[in-house]
Amino acid sequence: MDNAPLDALAAHFAGMPPVAALQLRIAGHAPGRLRLEAPLAANVNDKGCAFGGSLVSLMTLAGWGLGFLTLAEAGLAADIFVADSRVRYLKPVFEDLRVEAGFDAEGEQAALVDALRRQGRASVRMQARALLADGAVAATLAARYVAIAR
Amino acid sequence: MDNAPLDALAAHFAGMPPVAALQLRIAGHAPGRLRLEAPLAANVNDKGCAFGGSLVSLMTLAGWGLGFLTLAEAGLAADIFVADSRVRYLKPVFEDLRVEAGFDAEGEQAALVDALRRQGRASVRMQARALLADGAVAATLAARYVAIAR
Repeated sequence: MDNAPLDALAAHFAGMPPVAALQLRIAGHAPGRLRLEAPLAANVNDKGCAFGGSLVSLMTLAGWGLGFLTLAEAGLAADIFVADSRVRYLKPVFEDLRVEAGFDAEGEQAALVDALRRQGRASVRMQARALLADGAVAATLAARYVAIAR
Repeated sequence: MDNAPLDALAAHFAGMPPVAALQLRIAGHAPGRLRLEAPLAANVNDKGCAFGGSLVSLMTLAGWGLGFLTLAEAGLAADIFVADSRVRYLKPVFEDLRVEAGFDAEGEQAALVDALRRQGRASVRMQARALLADGAVAATLAARYVAIAR
């Protein structure tokens, strides 16, 4: 397996001070999926559970990173921007933060690569969620990203 | 002016590691309004502008802080949780981050205090936005918070 895109993504994350502060790590990647984790200690709020801003940052980054990896694996370089998002906070997270992102629908992944190749610009919808160790969903994010070829 | 609620809010913010990482400061408060600022350097992304996660964190905290101050000024203590939010990213922010939060509608502020006093629980909608120095709106947040009396 070619780890260059994953290494580039990790370097990207580490190079952004507010992302470095989350202390996130890439926990897993498969085609169309990306998992990130971050320690509770670096992301704790006044109630001893995960700060909402950290959860939304981590979910937003998981979608962003999945777009980055999808394009990098297709040999494409693009600037990716989050355009809008909707977040629901469902349960407090009293453990290390785990999030995973995926595409909104079947075919979205191929459509992203296609549109960027043909038009130099693409819009894509992603879903992400924060999961507890027992499998419960603690938060959800639906977001739209725009990619512009470099 | 009684600064105890503002001091308590600043201490609250400083006590949360992911919030301390934003390096935010309380820039202004009037009844029904709260302004926060944070330096770009601590919140910069890979493109040299503000990280989306920092913008949403700051806007979410401005709404949260406004709820906290509103209740504290009414002599009420509550745990406040963000329940859901919708964010639009409109323009890149190549300067220090400035956000302001307000209540969603006239009367929401009094309704929050009333509901908490009578029922021990309240739900309130807030709006926040990130502003550029030239007055342009760089991002908007609409969020719902739940407060539960302590």
